[in-house]
Amino acid sequence: MVADQLSLVFGALADPTRRAILHRLTEGDATVAELAAPFAMSQPAISRHLKVLETAGLISRTRRATARLSHLEAEPLREVTTWLTRYQRFWDESHERLDTLLAALQGNDDRGDAVQAQGDDHA
Amino acid sequence: MVADQLSLVFGALADPTRRAILHRLTEGDATVAELAAPFAMSQPAISRHLKVLETAGLISRTRRATARLSHLEAEPLREVTTWLTRYQRFWDESHERLDTLLAALQGNDDRGDAVQAQGDDHA
Repeated sequence: MVADQLSLVFGALADPTRRAILHRLTEGDATVAELAAPFAMSQPAISRHLKVLETAGLISRTRRATARLSHLEAEPLREVTTWLTRYQRFWDESHERLDTLLAALQGNDDRGDAVQAQGDDHA
Repeated sequence: MVADQLSLVFGALADPTRRAILHRLTEGDATVAELAAPFAMSQPAISRHLKVLETAGLISRTRRATARLSHLEAEPLREVTTWLTRYQRFWDESHERLDTLLAALQGNDDRGDAVQAQGDDHA
């Protein structure tokens, strides 16, 4: 993921409506009308949010009869998560709650060597 | 973390200069002049970026003699990472490269049950 793409993904996520749209799409593909329903927002306004998400690579859109379906594309979220791991040791310094994160990631609660002392080397 | 705070953090990360500043701060606290040095950017411009990072909770600032030192605060990055894990199963569907992520997070390469079939339940 190039730097500008990373900025596009973070920018797309910096809006509660767009995050809610992504969450809705975890339940399955949806039309603009279906996505607009839970919000006090016009379909054109939702369409503008969808365009931002599409540009960031977070959704793809296909046609079904007369409707356009939006589909969640989670790959950029994986890449963003990988980017965030470089800061892991800094939150380890003040918290030991990585247990919770790893448990959520793995679906179990065993772990190895998570808490590291501070140091000047960087990944 | 409330929804608006999440938007502030994602918004702060949606800029390559601000991400570079955070990366610089992984090496230690720094003054505005030190942070500005690698960039073709004025100190006031850097200060504006620092204000965005501070508002998002990603840095804190303290005085040392006449200079203000910026310090990385990684806790919001941990919270953002936790938020992203809800999408993990969607990137698992198309990729088995979670190995890489978990290895980076854990510093080892063993893993348990990562790849799940698709389903309609959501976390």
